[in-house]
Amino acid sequence: MKLDTAEFLEVFERIASIGATPDGGCERLSMSPEDIEARALLTGLLEEEGFAVWREPTGSIWARLEGEDPSLAPVLVGSHIDTVRNAGKYDGLLGVMLGYWAMRQIRREKIPHRRPIELVVFPTEESARFNYPTVGSKLLAGRVGPDKLRECIDAGGVSLYDALRAQGLDPDDTEPGRRRLREAFCFAELHIEQGPSLESRRTPIGIVEAIAAPTRLTVEITGEYAHSGACPMHLRRDALAAAAELILAVEKIGRFESVNHSVAAVTRCRLVNESMNVIPGHAVLGIDIRGIDQDSIDRCVEGVRRSLRKICSTRGVRGGVEVVSKDSPVQMSPTMMHAIRKCCEHCRLPYHLMPSGAGHDAMNVAPLTDTGMIFIPCKNGVSHNPAESVEPSDIEAGYQVLSELLLDRAKHR
Amino acid sequence: MKLDTAEFLEVFERIASIGATPDGGCERLSMSPEDIEARALLTGLLEEEGFAVWREPTGSIWARLEGEDPSLAPVLVGSHIDTVRNAGKYDGLLGVMLGYWAMRQIRREKIPHRRPIELVVFPTEESARFNYPTVGSKLLAGRVGPDKLRECIDAGGVSLYDALRAQGLDPDDTEPGRRRLREAFCFAELHIEQGPSLESRRTPIGIVEAIAAPTRLTVEITGEYAHSGACPMHLRRDALAAAAELILAVEKIGRFESVNHSVAAVTRCRLVNESMNVIPGHAVLGIDIRGIDQDSIDRCVEGVRRSLRKICSTRGVRGGVEVVSKDSPVQMSPTMMHAIRKCCEHCRLPYHLMPSGAGHDAMNVAPLTDTGMIFIPCKNGVSHNPAESVEPSDIEAGYQVLSELLLDRAKHR
Repeated sequence: MKLDTAEFLEVFERIASIGATPDGGCERLSMSPEDIEARALLTGLLEEEGFAVWREPTGSIWARLEGEDPSLAPVLVGSHIDTVRNAGKYDGLLGVMLGYWAMRQIRREKIPHRRPIELVVFPTEESARFNYPTVGSKLLAGRVGPDKLRECIDAGGVSLYDALRAQGLDPDDTEPGRRRLREAFCFAELHIEQGPSLESRRTPIGIVEAIAAPTRLTVEITGEYAHSGACPMHLRRDALAAAAELILAVEKIGRFESVNHSVAAVTRCRLVNESMNVIPGHAVLGIDIRGIDQDSIDRCVEGVRRSLRKICSTRGVRGGVEVVSKDSPVQMSPTMMHAIRKCCEHCRLPYHLMPSGAGHDAMNVAPLTDTGMIFIPCKNGVSHNPAESVEPSDIEAGYQVLSELLLDRAKHR
Repeated sequence: MKLDTAEFLEVFERIASIGATPDGGCERLSMSPEDIEARALLTGLLEEEGFAVWREPTGSIWARLEGEDPSLAPVLVGSHIDTVRNAGKYDGLLGVMLGYWAMRQIRREKIPHRRPIELVVFPTEESARFNYPTVGSKLLAGRVGPDKLRECIDAGGVSLYDALRAQGLDPDDTEPGRRRLREAFCFAELHIEQGPSLESRRTPIGIVEAIAAPTRLTVEITGEYAHSGACPMHLRRDALAAAAELILAVEKIGRFESVNHSVAAVTRCRLVNESMNVIPGHAVLGIDIRGIDQDSIDRCVEGVRRSLRKICSTRGVRGGVEVVSKDSPVQMSPTMMHAIRKCCEHCRLPYHLMPSGAGHDAMNVAPLTDTGMIFIPCKNGVSHNPAESVEPSDIEAGYQVLSELLLDRAKHR
């Protein structure tokens, strides 16, 4: 199916412009007035189009395009429309809108399909407000209970639980939504890549093989504060110099394990009580390791521990590693990967099999039903930033593959 | 002359305990109520002892022990009594109190001496409150004018100029103090080392050859923010990894130049907009280089620039160096160094010729009159911290050398 790009972008902009920032970005934090406005506008569009819309009690939004056989399990397509702070337009929203557009075109052009097709919009995918990512899909997938939502507190002290209640929703009433997700035939999510791999390969379509799981470590290094003029070089126990060695060691580990699609970086670095004329005595680092191969992830963590031990013994500093969080990588369904590849070939579009370094709602849905993800390139790999940008030709390519995929799956007995 | 240690420490504690902190340290920020109380108590002690006390208009305190020939230029001894935040007891105050004690003992025991001996207590040596070090002695030495004091603003918006005025002082009336300093015969300052060199050599006396000058650089490294999961290792432009290379390069430069008594370290490290799941895009480092040999200091600075250029070209990041401040090293007077050595030999005390890595009031006085500094060890080299500690035997050794030096200089025609 071919996208009427001008018309699509006009409708897309109607939602993207809610919470617009002067520099071309937008901000719709979960359950903020902007998010609520966008949810209402989207719900209106879906109802206008004649879809059966369900405002699911825990905050997801569902729309159903009936199939020839309504008794069959539906094909799901979806993503999220909330954003981080100072966000771009395309993260999440593009996947939702292309799914909606495909259902709209199938309905308007009366394209035959056996199974129902349903759009699902998961709430609170971003952790920007409530400090916990993909919590909407985690709740519906049964990975967390409603109690978890009481622990998700924003900077103003409001819990996600209360924010949902304030919208007339009922986060305790999980069962209807969980049943609907569990009973789906399959789930497809289209998303911008949020990295530069596709762009650098000049490839319009990424087929996600697995979604990487983050393992987060906090490393504390304790050296000795000393006068930066009076303490001779050979008597220093510089916590920052020790940290620098670890930062480079983590980079080396990430590079070494990148053949296995793992990455590793020190993303946070803070000196405790730093002062221009004091040798740093205490450094705290945050390390983010991601991978789709658990053995490779484990080697990264062990590599960090080993490097730190060596640095401590060489430099006479003390170091400690704390594992802050540790998720497992999620494999995408081979059936869905194969189906997406077939669609790419049918549309004569080049594709690339790749891991997703970032987390997505699809990782929570994957254990329940056949799940697949389609990536399209974004400019310079930039995301979570007003500079986020996607070429219209890539939107068209993504639409072709996504709509073919929905029809292919919906024709399936 | 021998120190009556118990009696001395009792009097020392009377001032050291002003602004005492629960962990054995103290805090007397310049012109704070605690500093003012300590200045008043010290002035009282000096007057009680019968010295002619002069409350110099810009804030220094002077006390004179008359000599046999009052027409001769006086021998000066002194230091400061203000402290950093969360300070130790000995930094500054010990030098003032041992000078006072020597003058007291010479007076009480009527030890003959030709020249007058004067104690000078410089105000605002520490930069902790007004962000500019040794400003009291800089003003009296004519290195800065009163206008500079208007620019020295504390966290509450109060200028040093106004803080002095509030004490009934007149920072514009510099000439009397400047004349008195300029016309002195010589100046001696005793101070704790604030580094571990003497302790590690088990040597009680350090004779300062030169006071190192700090050169401070700010380095900004701009890489590219990227998703820490989605961006492959080989496409990252990690500003923190680049910074880590520079941190280690600076350490290497400092080690290499330490044969010339230079040291170098990155003492500040800050990531702009850091986030657990974002590759750092912007790092700001502060570098502190000290040395007593200008060529060596220049090589350190050039080494930093060269390393940064190389890192930028290898990693595809951008870097900029700003020279924030650049002082010149100050040589101590050979006459004074020789005199101190003679006193050590006379007292049968081991000594070590060494640079001072830290700045002191003596560096401002040195261009005006023969200036010498005596260091004594402090425990583990720790200073600017409540854990600051000095062995009584080292205080006694320092007192012997200082009092001998004052008598030796005061006998001089």
